[in-house]
Amino acid sequence: MKSKDFGNFKGILVIGLGLIGGSFAKSLKSEGYQGKIYGFDLNQARIKIAEELNIIDKGFSSFEEIPWEDIDLVILATPVKTFEDIAKQIKPFLKEGTVISDVGSVKGELVYKLQAILEPFEFIGAHPIAGTEKEGVENSVDGLFKGKKLILTIEEETENTKRLEKLWTDLGAKVEVMDPFMHDFVFASVSHLPHAVAFALVDALIKLSKEKGIDLFLYPGAGFKDFTRIAASSPSIWKDIFIQNKKDVIHTIDEFINSLQNLKKLIEEENEEALIKILEESREKRRELD
Amino acid sequence: MKSKDFGNFKGILVIGLGLIGGSFAKSLKSEGYQGKIYGFDLNQARIKIAEELNIIDKGFSSFEEIPWEDIDLVILATPVKTFEDIAKQIKPFLKEGTVISDVGSVKGELVYKLQAILEPFEFIGAHPIAGTEKEGVENSVDGLFKGKKLILTIEEETENTKRLEKLWTDLGAKVEVMDPFMHDFVFASVSHLPHAVAFALVDALIKLSKEKGIDLFLYPGAGFKDFTRIAASSPSIWKDIFIQNKKDVIHTIDEFINSLQNLKKLIEEENEEALIKILEESREKRRELD
Repeated sequence: MKSKDFGNFKGILVIGLGLIGGSFAKSLKSEGYQGKIYGFDLNQARIKIAEELNIIDKGFSSFEEIPWEDIDLVILATPVKTFEDIAKQIKPFLKEGTVISDVGSVKGELVYKLQAILEPFEFIGAHPIAGTEKEGVENSVDGLFKGKKLILTIEEETENTKRLEKLWTDLGAKVEVMDPFMHDFVFASVSHLPHAVAFALVDALIKLSKEKGIDLFLYPGAGFKDFTRIAASSPSIWKDIFIQNKKDVIHTIDEFINSLQNLKKLIEEENEEALIKILEESREKRRELD
Repeated sequence: MKSKDFGNFKGILVIGLGLIGGSFAKSLKSEGYQGKIYGFDLNQARIKIAEELNIIDKGFSSFEEIPWEDIDLVILATPVKTFEDIAKQIKPFLKEGTVISDVGSVKGELVYKLQAILEPFEFIGAHPIAGTEKEGVENSVDGLFKGKKLILTIEEETENTKRLEKLWTDLGAKVEVMDPFMHDFVFASVSHLPHAVAFALVDALIKLSKEKGIDLFLYPGAGFKDFTRIAASSPSIWKDIFIQNKKDVIHTIDEFINSLQNLKKLIEEENEEALIKILEESREKRRELD
């Protein structure tokens, strides 16, 4: 096992001081990263918090002021829909050999767009499978990525993909490689769909409450709170993810509605045997997760 | 505050030694109930476990053998669909003045049916809003009902409803009165619908895994595990609940599908403003729960 060298990046710029960007910076420091960690955010208040909490060494809200000569890794940690714009804006400032990566939840075509924009610089798509329903740099979690998967959406290994893999491994992440389009299908299924379902469930309960003139939220049974916890996730982030990964999200919603319509049909028909079969299959699959 | 007298019931028979029946008996003992606690179950192994764990004083698997003269409260804790049959079977044995109640998740018409069957004995519908996704008397939880709601589906107070209320209050439950039909609507919305959604979600992920030849369950992102925890609930219990509360369950599934179809439409149209509005409304409602 090699010692921690964090891929030998000498200086890192985190663009977007939210929960993930902040947790990335915080974890780097606590794991012993010795290079500089800079932050960029348009919101001055966030920079102040990040500096005061010693999450970053220095923050900026203008690209002109950043000491680009110190930076050989840039991490995009803003909402996914801003990535192309930011890539265009930062490209003229980048030092030769600087690697650009991200922590965004949507990959697919976007990865190829960013590679085209940033060429000859190397863009490497990355997605840490970690988070909380909280937002903001002030809620940054030290060690957020420990034991969590980190998906690199690359087609072949390069010197720089190996460096980035080493950096994330040194933060405790389990790095896995996936095609950018398969990535979007997988996370539409296991993350975007469950979020859509949670938001829709709460919406349905609001409507059902109105229908009968009773506040259903006064009766959260066992499981209900767990179930809707993710409905408290950031509306602006999730609005973007749904739209950015529209094709896969809609496909998985359709597949889910088919499953639910089928379940409903079996309930209507009181088909006990088929119901038990579906419910048992679900239980088995769910138990494998534990 | 009156001292704990558990409604002055002298002997209690729990019919059905599962998680809820077991937790009820276990909690009675630990809270200092001094009367006898008998158990009934067709499964001898469960009786043995319940006796060995000192959850009940004595268990029976034949109604003839039960010392009915010692019993003035019977709690139905078997699957809801067995209630009518059991009521008919036990009625000839009941001592004058014995109260019959239950811990079932479905009320509505069933309450009136049981009252008709058991007359002149008093049947009082009760539903403790507590549970875990585990099953079986061996997983009984001491104090399961502490701080939890207990719904009594009664139309007017009687001496016996007050006694039953006292018993549950002495176990730490917060007793609330509700019309039996409103009860079924409320729990279809906050419990049965979320369970149907969780089962359908896991089912959809199984299908989506097959579609792309990838095991999606290897990628449980943040929130996903919480979300599907309830999909590990008992298939036989949930099959019964769905069928017993069919009308309300189907109505709430339809309402939920409407909400999800609407969300899908907004994603397709990339209607950012309307998406943010729905997502924010959901977040607010969810946050009120904490």
